[in-house]
Amino acid sequence: MQVSEAGLLMAEDGPAVGLENPDGASPIVLVCEHAANRIPAALDRLGLDDEVLDSHVGWDIGALGVARILAATLDATLVHQRFSRLIYDCNRPPGATDAMPAVSEAYEIAANRALDEGARAARIEAIYRPFEAAIARVIAARFAREIKPMLVTIHSFTRVYNGMRRDLDLGILHDADARLAERLLAGAARLADCKVGRNEPYGPRDGVTHTLRLHGIAHGIENVMIEIANDKIAQEADQKLWAERLAELLTNALANRQEHGETLFARHSR
Amino acid sequence: MQVSEAGLLMAEDGPAVGLENPDGASPIVLVCEHAANRIPAALDRLGLDDEVLDSHVGWDIGALGVARILAATLDATLVHQRFSRLIYDCNRPPGATDAMPAVSEAYEIAANRALDEGARAARIEAIYRPFEAAIARVIAARFAREIKPMLVTIHSFTRVYNGMRRDLDLGILHDADARLAERLLAGAARLADCKVGRNEPYGPRDGVTHTLRLHGIAHGIENVMIEIANDKIAQEADQKLWAERLAELLTNALANRQEHGETLFARHSR
Repeated sequence: MQVSEAGLLMAEDGPAVGLENPDGASPIVLVCEHAANRIPAALDRLGLDDEVLDSHVGWDIGALGVARILAATLDATLVHQRFSRLIYDCNRPPGATDAMPAVSEAYEIAANRALDEGARAARIEAIYRPFEAAIARVIAARFAREIKPMLVTIHSFTRVYNGMRRDLDLGILHDADARLAERLLAGAARLADCKVGRNEPYGPRDGVTHTLRLHGIAHGIENVMIEIANDKIAQEADQKLWAERLAELLTNALANRQEHGETLFARHSR
Repeated sequence: MQVSEAGLLMAEDGPAVGLENPDGASPIVLVCEHAANRIPAALDRLGLDDEVLDSHVGWDIGALGVARILAATLDATLVHQRFSRLIYDCNRPPGATDAMPAVSEAYEIAANRALDEGARAARIEAIYRPFEAAIARVIAARFAREIKPMLVTIHSFTRVYNGMRRDLDLGILHDADARLAERLLAGAARLADCKVGRNEPYGPRDGVTHTLRLHGIAHGIENVMIEIANDKIAQEADQKLWAERLAELLTNALANRQEHGETLFARHSR
C-alpha cells in the first residue's frame, strides 16, 4: 500500500484541503471544517455503514453546498476539509478528547476507540495541519493585499438530536469577539420564518470555537460561526436560497464594519 | 549573497528558533518571544546603533536568562526566538501594525518604514512561521505523551518608559483564560518587596496576548504571560533569584491545577 509522506492519505484519496476561488476579492474568508464525509482508503470506511457516514454524524449535510454558492456570490475564498470529521474534526485542537471521536451522538465509532500515538499523529499531520496552514495562508494573502479579512465558518446541525427536536433554524455563534456576530444577529432578526439563536445549538463552552479562536481572535480578525438546520439545506435549491440570505447578511455586516478592533493592535514598546 | 529558502536568513545567521530541553518532563512549555537582539546579516543591523539594539527596544533584557534557568529548574521545554523583535515581533500576528514596528518607544526604526509585500512576507516566513510551528510541535509532543501542557511566556519591561517611571516589579498577564494567572497572582501576593500587578504594564487590549491566544486559548491550554522589570534581572545572579521565585510559583500553580477547563472539550455531535 502506497502511503503518502503524511502516513495516511494515498494518491487516490486526493488532498486533505479543498481551496476554491483563492484570489477572491472579498475580505471574507469562508471555512467549512465538516464539508465532507470522505474516509481515506487506508481506513476502510472506519468499518461504518453508509447510513452512518451519510448522516450528520459523518459531516455537516448541505454546508459545503451553501459555502460554495456563498463563495461564488461574494467572490470570497473558501477553504474546506475533504475528509470526514470522524477522521479528524478540524474544529478541534489536537489535544481535545473529541478531535478523533470514539462516540458521536448515539454512534460508537469503534475504529477510533483505541488509537495509538502514531495513528493520532498521522491524522493530525495528514488532516489537521494542512487545513490550518491553508487557512493561515489565505488570511496572510489578504493582509499582503492590504485587505483586512473577516472569517466566516459554515456549519449545519441536525434537527433531531438524541431524540429531541430543535426548533432553531439558524445559529450565529461567537466566542470572545462578538463584533461580527452582533451585526449578523441584528440583520437576521429581520428574516421571515426563521428562528435565529445566539450561540445555539452550541456555544464556546462546548469547545466548538477552535477555528474562531485560532484564526480569528488570536489574529484580531472579526469572526463568526454560522449553523443552519440541515433539513433546510439538504437540497440544492434550498442551499441557493440560504446562500443568498447569508450573502445579504454578510454584505451588510461588511459594509457596517467598524475599526474599533484596531485597539487590539495599539503600538507599544516593552 | 547566499539567501536561504526563506529568503532572509543566511547560514551564518543560524536558525530562527532556539529549542532547549525538548524532552523535558514538565507539562510547562516556556516561550520567550523577545529573547534576542540579533539582526540577520542581510539586514545590516537595520542601520541602528548598538545602544538602541542593546536596549529594551531590541529585546527583553534578561528574559532569556531567566527562562533558561527556569527550564532547567522545572525540567521544562523552552522555545525562544533568536532574532530581534524589530525584525518580527513573534508576539504579534502577521496582520498587526506593530509586527514589524517602524517606531518603538521614542525610536524610529527607519528600515521598517516602507517594507514592501515581499520583505514583509520574507520576515513572516523566516521568523514567525517557524517559531509558531516549533511551539505547536512542542505542545503536540506533550499531548502525545498524555501530558496536558501549560503555556508560560517570559518577558521583561523597561522601568522607565517614555520618561515615566513604573513601580511595578512583576506583571502577571492573561487574556480570556485567567485560570493560571489567578493561581500565580495568589502566590505572588506573598512575595516580599515585590510590587505585583495584573495585566500590567500591558494587557490584552494592547495586543500583547497573541501567543496566549494562539497556543493557549485556542487549544484549551492554561496559559500566562510573565513580565519582570528588566532592572531586576539584568545580572545573572538576579536572573537565578527570579527564576527560583517563578519556579516555586509555577510548581504550586501546577500542583493546584483544576480540571474545570475540560468543559471546553465536551463531547457533542452536530
